[in-house]
Amino acid sequence: MKFKVKDMDIATGGTLVAILNENDAKKLDLHSGDRILVKDHNKEITCILDLSESRKAVPEGSIGLFEEVLDRLQVRNGSIVNIKFTGKPESVTHIRDKLFGKRLHYQELYHIVDDITNDRLTDIEKTYFVAASFTHGLSIEETVDLTRAMVETGKKIKFASTTLDKHCIGGIPGNRTTMIVIPIVAAAGLTIPKTSSRAITSPAGTADTMECLANVELPEEKIKSIVRKTHACIVHGGSMNLAPADDKIIEVEQPLSIDAEGQLLASVLAKKLSVSASHILIDIPMGKSTKANTWKKAKHLRTKFEGIGKKLGMNIRVIITDGSQPIGNGIGPLLEAEDVLAILQNKPEAPADLRKKSLMLAGLLLEMGGGYRNGLKAATEILESGQAWRQMKKIIQAQGPRTMPQRGRCTWAVRSGKIGRVHEINNESIAKIARIAGAPFDKGAGLRLAKKVHDPVQRGDLLYTIYAESGFKLNLAKNFVYHDKGYKIQ
Amino acid sequence: MKFKVKDMDIATGGTLVAILNENDAKKLDLHSGDRILVKDHNKEITCILDLSESRKAVPEGSIGLFEEVLDRLQVRNGSIVNIKFTGKPESVTHIRDKLFGKRLHYQELYHIVDDITNDRLTDIEKTYFVAASFTHGLSIEETVDLTRAMVETGKKIKFASTTLDKHCIGGIPGNRTTMIVIPIVAAAGLTIPKTSSRAITSPAGTADTMECLANVELPEEKIKSIVRKTHACIVHGGSMNLAPADDKIIEVEQPLSIDAEGQLLASVLAKKLSVSASHILIDIPMGKSTKANTWKKAKHLRTKFEGIGKKLGMNIRVIITDGSQPIGNGIGPLLEAEDVLAILQNKPEAPADLRKKSLMLAGLLLEMGGGYRNGLKAATEILESGQAWRQMKKIIQAQGPRTMPQRGRCTWAVRSGKIGRVHEINNESIAKIARIAGAPFDKGAGLRLAKKVHDPVQRGDLLYTIYAESGFKLNLAKNFVYHDKGYKIQ
Repeated sequence: MKFKVKDMDIATGGTLVAILNENDAKKLDLHSGDRILVKDHNKEITCILDLSESRKAVPEGSIGLFEEVLDRLQVRNGSIVNIKFTGKPESVTHIRDKLFGKRLHYQELYHIVDDITNDRLTDIEKTYFVAASFTHGLSIEETVDLTRAMVETGKKIKFASTTLDKHCIGGIPGNRTTMIVIPIVAAAGLTIPKTSSRAITSPAGTADTMECLANVELPEEKIKSIVRKTHACIVHGGSMNLAPADDKIIEVEQPLSIDAEGQLLASVLAKKLSVSASHILIDIPMGKSTKANTWKKAKHLRTKFEGIGKKLGMNIRVIITDGSQPIGNGIGPLLEAEDVLAILQNKPEAPADLRKKSLMLAGLLLEMGGGYRNGLKAATEILESGQAWRQMKKIIQAQGPRTMPQRGRCTWAVRSGKIGRVHEINNESIAKIARIAGAPFDKGAGLRLAKKVHDPVQRGDLLYTIYAESGFKLNLAKNFVYHDKGYKIQ
Repeated sequence: MKFKVKDMDIATGGTLVAILNENDAKKLDLHSGDRILVKDHNKEITCILDLSESRKAVPEGSIGLFEEVLDRLQVRNGSIVNIKFTGKPESVTHIRDKLFGKRLHYQELYHIVDDITNDRLTDIEKTYFVAASFTHGLSIEETVDLTRAMVETGKKIKFASTTLDKHCIGGIPGNRTTMIVIPIVAAAGLTIPKTSSRAITSPAGTADTMECLANVELPEEKIKSIVRKTHACIVHGGSMNLAPADDKIIEVEQPLSIDAEGQLLASVLAKKLSVSASHILIDIPMGKSTKANTWKKAKHLRTKFEGIGKKLGMNIRVIITDGSQPIGNGIGPLLEAEDVLAILQNKPEAPADLRKKSLMLAGLLLEMGGGYRNGLKAATEILESGQAWRQMKKIIQAQGPRTMPQRGRCTWAVRSGKIGRVHEINNESIAKIARIAGAPFDKGAGLRLAKKVHDPVQRGDLLYTIYAESGFKLNLAKNFVYHDKGYKIQ
C-alpha cells in the first residue's frame, strides 16, 4: 500500500510513530497502536500507528512521519513509501500473561525489556507491564531475570580490578555521602567507579552536586582512564546507556508515583551489574517520607536485596539508616557541595551528621572490599589526614574542574515563631521548598538549615535560609513556606 | 508565566494537550503528564503537558497547542497566554488506591469516570485504572457504582412506556438476531428502542448491517419520534453519548485484548440504564472463541448480570446459547442483512439456525415484558403472519430507507479438499477472512457459508463463497485462506 509522506515537523524523542488518516486506517482494518512496517527502497522501519481524525493534519493517502523516522528512512515531505501491517511484538503477549498472573521466564522478560529499550512498546503496553508486575508482584527468580535482561540490553563496562559500589535508595534531602565516601575508599587504593543520577523529584542528585565541582558527562573511554588514574569517578550515569530500560520504566511509574518493589530491586542491581561491581553497600534510609517507612519494610527490602544479590553473584551488604530528617545542612546542588567540601577539608563548620554517616559507610566498604578489620578507624584517618581531600582533588582534576557557581543572590530567612525544641523536619516539605526556589536546575538555589531535630529554639531563631537566583522564584518559595514551613516546634 | 502560542496544526480529537520545550519544563519543575492551566483573558483550560526535545517543534518560550485548545481559548499562532501549574485530578489518587487493592466507592468511581469522559486523564493513568480493576477485580458494589457513574456522566433518554432491551455479549460471526427480534417484539406493541454498535473487531455490528437498509445515525429527537410511531428503532448508539466513558475504557483494553469482567458488566448495563430499559434479555453465546468459553464462566457471568441488575432495579434474564459456530449464512453487513430479510419475509432459503434462535429470544422478551404465556408460539405467529416484516418496513421507513448495496463483485469459492463431515468451524478465522475481504467497511464484502457443523461434504463441495469489492482484497483473503480455511472436515 503506497502513501505520500507528510513531514510532521515534530521530534518525539522516543517511540517511532506514523500517523494515518482515520478513514485510511478503517479501510485497512488498522487500529491505533497497531504496528506497521514503513518501507522505502531498501530501508524499512517498524512504527507504532497513530490516527488523525482531521484531514488538515494527515489527509487520506498520506502518512505523517516524525523526524526520527524521516531520518532513518532518509525520506522527506512528498516521498512515496510503502506500508505493511506487521503484528504486535511478541512481548505484548508476555505482558498479557503477566496481567493474568503468570510467572515470566528469562526469555519472556528479555523480550519485554528489549522492546522497552528500543521504544517498540506504547505507553499503554508499558503501563500494563508495570501495573501487572506491581499488583501480582515479581518473584525472586523474576527479579533476577529482569535484572539480567536489563543488563544485557544495555552497555556493560568492565574495570581491571575488583570493583566496589554504593547505593542509597533515597528519599532524604541533603545526604550527599557519595562525594565523601568515594574519595576515602579510592584513597585506600580500592576501585570504586560511581555512576550517579540527576534529581528527578528531589532538589539535587549526586550528579547535580558533583557538577558544581567537575564535569560529570563523560564518554566511556574517558571514564575508564579516570578510574585507572584515580581508582574512582563520580559521573552521571544517565547518558552512559547502562540498563537503559530502567529509565523508561520509571517514566511510566511516575504519573502514579508507584514504586514496584521488583522493579526497584532490578533497577538498582542492574546498574551495578552493568559496571561489573562485585561488592555493593546499599543504604536504606528509614523515615516517614522514604520508600522503606517502617522497620518491617526496611528489613524486608534488605532480605530481598541480599537474596537477589546472592543469585546474581554479588556481595551485597545492606545498612538501614536514620531517614527521619535531612542529613547535612545544605539542600540543593551548590549548598550540598559546600557541605561536602567542608567535611573533606576538615573545616569546623562541617555538618557532623553527614560526616559521621559518610565515615561509617566508607568504613564498611573498606571492610568489605579491602580486608580492613576496623574500617571506621581507617576511614577516619584517611579523612583527617587530608588524603581523602587530595584524592577528591585528583578526581576533580581528572574529570575536568568547573568553576563553582555562586549561592543564589536572593535570600530569605525563615525563623521560629515560638520557643521549644525542633520536634520534626518534614523531608518532603523541605525538598519541595528547595525545588520551588529553583533547585536542581539553578545550581545555587536551595536551603541551608540552621536547626536540626532536638535542637532547642528561641522565638525568632533562624531555622533555615532560602537561596534563589531570582526574586520571582524566591517569592514562590515564600508563598509555599507561608502554608508549610516544614518544621514542627514543640 | 507567559508563553507564545505555536499552532501545531494537528487535531488530536481527544485529550487536551499542551507542549512545552523540555528546557522550559525543567526550569518550571514540570513533567510530562503534569496538568497546566492555560489562560487567555477570561478563558482558561486545563491541559495535559507533553514535552518537546526539539527546538524546531516547540522552541523555548513557546507553547504548542492543538486545534481543540486553540478553538476553546480562541487564540492563534503568536498569541501570548499565561500558564499555571495545577495538580493532577483527584481521580488519579483513586486510581492509585485501586492499584493498591482498595475498594472504591461511588464518589471515587464517579470522579474517575467523569475525568475519563472529559478526556482529563492520560493513557497511562487510564491504563492503570483498567489494569488495577482487572487484576484486583471489581466487587458487585463497585460494578454497580461504576455502572451508575457511567450513566450519570452521559446522556439519558426516557421513553413513555415500559422499555425492553436485548443484548448479546458477542463473539459469533453472523448471529444478527436483533434485526428479527426487534420487529417481532414491536409488532406485539411493546417498546424496544435498540441502540447498537458498529463492528470493532468483528466483520459487522448490528448498526453496520441495519445501515444496508436504513439510516442509523439519528439525532435524539428523531429517535424518540420513531419510537413513538413504531415502538422501536435499530440505530447506532455510538454517537448518542450514552455512557461515553465506556468506549474510552475499551480503547485502553484493546491493545492487550483484555476484557475486565467488571467493566464488561458495567459497559452493557450502563448503556441499557441510559435508555431507561427495565426488562433486559442478555444472550451469552458459549463457544471456544467467545468471552464465556466454558459453562462455568458462562454461568458465573449469568449470576453476576442477574445480581447487579437486581441492585440496579432492572429485570434481567440471561440465556446461555450455542456459540460454537457462526449463526446464519451471511458474514458481513449486506450478506447478514440478506439473511435477516429472508427470515422476515418467510423465504425458503432463510437460515434455520438464525430463525430459530431469533424466535426463541423474541419469545422470551414477549414473556418478560408482555405477559405472554407461550412467547415462542406468539413470536412464531407474528413472524409467519408477515406482521414482523410489516413492522420492520415501518421502522425502516421511519429511520429513512437506504438503497441496498450490492454484493462484492469479486468472488471466490472455497471448496472441501476431502470427504467427510464438517467437524468444526473456527469463528475467529471466519471473522478474520471476512474482515480481510473488506467487511465491515465495504458493505458488500464478506462470506456466505454453504455448510455448517455436522453437514456431510464431498470432495469439491462448496464450503463458502468470499465476496470482495476489489481483486486486491479478494487476493489478501485468498492468501489467508491458503493457510487457514476455518473449516475442519473429518
